[in-house]
This record gives sequence, C-alpha cells and structure tokens, in this order.
Amino acid sequence: MKFQKYKKEETYSYTLGAFPTLELIKTKKETIIAIFIHPSFNNQEVINKIYNNVDSNLIFKDEKIFSKLSNKENVYIIGIFKKYEMHLDKNMNHVLLDNPSDMGNLGTIIRSSLGFDFLNIAIIEPGVDIFNPKVIRASMGSFFLCNIEYFHSLEDYLKKYSEHTLYSFMLQTDIKLSSFKFDKNKLTTLAFGNEAHGLDKKYLKYNPIIIKHSALIDSLNITNALTIALYEFDKQIKE
Amino acid sequence: MKFQKYKKEETYSYTLGAFPTLELIKTKKETIIAIFIHPSFNNQEVINKIYNNVDSNLIFKDEKIFSKLSNKENVYIIGIFKKYEMHLDKNMNHVLLDNPSDMGNLGTIIRSSLGFDFLNIAIIEPGVDIFNPKVIRASMGSFFLCNIEYFHSLEDYLKKYSEHTLYSFMLQTDIKLSSFKFDKNKLTTLAFGNEAHGLDKKYLKYNPIIIKHSALIDSLNITNALTIALYEFDKQIKE
Repeated sequence: MKFQKYKKEETYSYTLGAFPTLELIKTKKETIIAIFIHPSFNNQEVINKIYNNVDSNLIFKDEKIFSKLSNKENVYIIGIFKKYEMHLDKNMNHVLLDNPSDMGNLGTIIRSSLGFDFLNIAIIEPGVDIFNPKVIRASMGSFFLCNIEYFHSLEDYLKKYSEHTLYSFMLQTDIKLSSFKFDKNKLTTLAFGNEAHGLDKKYLKYNPIIIKHSALIDSLNITNALTIALYEFDKQIKE
Repeated sequence: MKFQKYKKEETYSYTLGAFPTLELIKTKKETIIAIFIHPSFNNQEVINKIYNNVDSNLIFKDEKIFSKLSNKENVYIIGIFKKYEMHLDKNMNHVLLDNPSDMGNLGTIIRSSLGFDFLNIAIIEPGVDIFNPKVIRASMGSFFLCNIEYFHSLEDYLKKYSEHTLYSFMLQTDIKLSSFKFDKNKLTTLAFGNEAHGLDKKYLKYNPIIIKHSALIDSLNITNALTIALYEFDKQIKE
C-alpha cells in the first residue's frame, strides 16, 4: 500500500499524532485502513491501546511514511482512514458555517462546538475540505465525534432542516447577544460567516444578532465569536 | 542598516504586512527605525499614509529584506521598530497570563482583550517573547494599543497591583462562570494559565472560576476560554 500526502480527491485521509489517532480508533474504527507506528515510539500504553483495538494486519512499523505525510517533527503515530459521509441529526442543534476558509479555525470551531454539545455542523459551500489533516489536527481529534454536512446553498440547508430556527451572527444589526433571549423550546442553528467578510445580508431575515466589542478592534476572531455564542446559548438553556 | 531575522536578544522587532505597520505608525510612531516598501507594492492609499506620517529618511524601497525577514509571500510592507518598555495602568482592569507558551494564541488573546476594553496584560514568567513578530502578526496590529508587563512571579504582580481583585480561571473548582457575579466596583484581573496545564493550585486562593464544557472535549482552547470570560465580565459591568 502506498499513501501520498493528502489530496482532496483521494478517498482516504489521516490523523497525525497519538491523540487524534486514538480518537479515530475509539469512534470510527470501521474506517481504518492502516495505523503506522514510528519505530522510535515507545509509549507502551498507546501501543497497547492500538493493538487491543485494531486488527493487527492493519498495524505497521515504518519510518519513511512519517516524513512523507507530516511536516511536524513530533508525530509518531499516523492513522489512515477511509473518508465517510455524514448527515446532520435533525433532532439536535446545529452550527452553520457559511463559506469557512481557514482549516485551523474550522478545527478549533469543531472542538468548541462539541464543548457545548453542538455535534452537528452544516457548511454552506464554498468551504474548506473538512477531511484535510490540518482540520482534524486542529480539532484535537474531536472531528470524529461530530457530523458535518455540506450544502450548496443556505436554501438547501433550510429545506432539509426546516424545523430549525436560525440565528445569524453578523455586524449589520443592533440586536445584542448580551441582552438576547433564545427560544429554548426550538431546535436551534447558530450561523456564522466567512472569516473576512462575515454573513451575507440575506441572513438579516434570520434573527440577526451582534456580539458587541469595543471600537479598538475591527472584529473578533471567528472561533472566539462563535465560542461566545455557544457559551451564551448553553447558559440560557441551562437556566 | 542591516536587519536580521528576529532574535529575542535584539533591540528591535518588526511588523509584517500593511495592516500592523499602519497600526504601528498610528500608535507608536516614535519607535520606528525604518519602513520598507516592496517595489511591486502599489496600494497608493497605504503608501500615502506611510509618507504622510513617517519621516521620509526612514522609508526605503527594497526587495531583499522581504525574503530575509518574512516566510510568507503576501508581505509587501515591513516596519522595523525599537522595542519599548511598558507598564500596566493601575487604574484599569487587567488580564493575567501565567506561563503562556504559544505566540499565535498570545496574539489572539491581545485582540480579544482589546475587544472587551482590557488594554493591560500581565505575563508571569516564563512566557513567550511578546515582541516576536508572530505575536504582533496574530494580534492583527492591536499589539501596539496595549500595555504588557512581565513579572517573575504572581507575588510580584500582586505586590505591584495590590488594588486589583484576581479571578482565577481553572478546572479545580465548582464555581461556574455562568452563575458567577463579579464585583463590579473593584479593579479586576482575569487570570489564565498555560495552554497545556492551566493555572497552578496556588491560584485557588484567588476566586477560582470554572468555565463548564461538555465531557466530549478535554478542554477549551485558551483563547476561546479567555474570550468567554471577557464577554461575561463585560456583560455584567454593562448591566
């Protein structure tokens, strides 16, 4: 078996490092194609977890693949897995990202979303490739616990998940998150736009909300803004 | 004048890109040693702003310095400036970071802090070098608007800023941020620990607070956690 550096067109992707690989083994074992262990890796606890949970025919000791697939020096475990299709759970709350363009941000967003029990993320195209190893790495392995689904347009999303109430985080409104009350009885979608230009004004129809910040900065980083929204929502539904 | 790739021991640092360089010119003009403009840069508005605000003897058109100081391809303006000393404003609220180790995170923390009117950041050593161009870049130029001061220990900080009430964000407590009430009449310090191991248990003496998240993740990213704290504090003082 030959594995190449990640390409979007390929049918497989991979985890870099022990932590996300263990998460892969725990939650998406059936997708595993191969696990590579660097010959110099000697954390016996991790090695045991791998051998106890993965078919030994799929486990390889190999050195060359590490320099081929990883730019980082501290990677000693790689898990190759078959890409899989996901659909959002229609009975749970969603995060919606319209045109996300940064892989590191997406990974961090996944981690924060899971941190507040949002396990379903809609992406309105164009958007970054979720299977890129950089996304998986930035998510600290939480990638494997969530459902991510692409949509050609907001309309496609709304058609498929018509029971959800959309809240649009954007600057073109005076309705502040800090005094906003979410409707706790409805299925919720928290929507965020692109890192550089935010949500399009067509989202003004869907409960626009602003997270106010001082005039000293142009904008909050998108992952920070989204995490604030998740925190405030979570606080209200637990009140 | 010869400028080298950034070194901690050097007396100068630099901004990479037009945006942080304009922020440098706007707020810390007196520290500028040289501004370099790439010969292929043709944004006349930015060029005019530079010439209108900086002594023309300090402005250079040069190509070689860009490959020397920057790894990124899209940098066309560099501002070299003399490092300067800062002290925290004792009449304003502070963020305190004990042993921050990631330059990108620190830059993002600076941006979020300014976004909620925290312009003063204490760093308990060891901590990353704040003048590293990576910090300045990640702060999107907001670096130049804030005061950052290093302290050998928490005790040194508390001695110097004894009027401040410290709130310690950590996992070893049951006091949740979502139901916590800050004392609005006191000068406030919001304290956060290292990315990997958080605040030391000695901070338990200083109003420990936990930001609760689901069991699906190990921890929130530090910049996200800190931004939640800033948001909640800001919301309460504006109520």
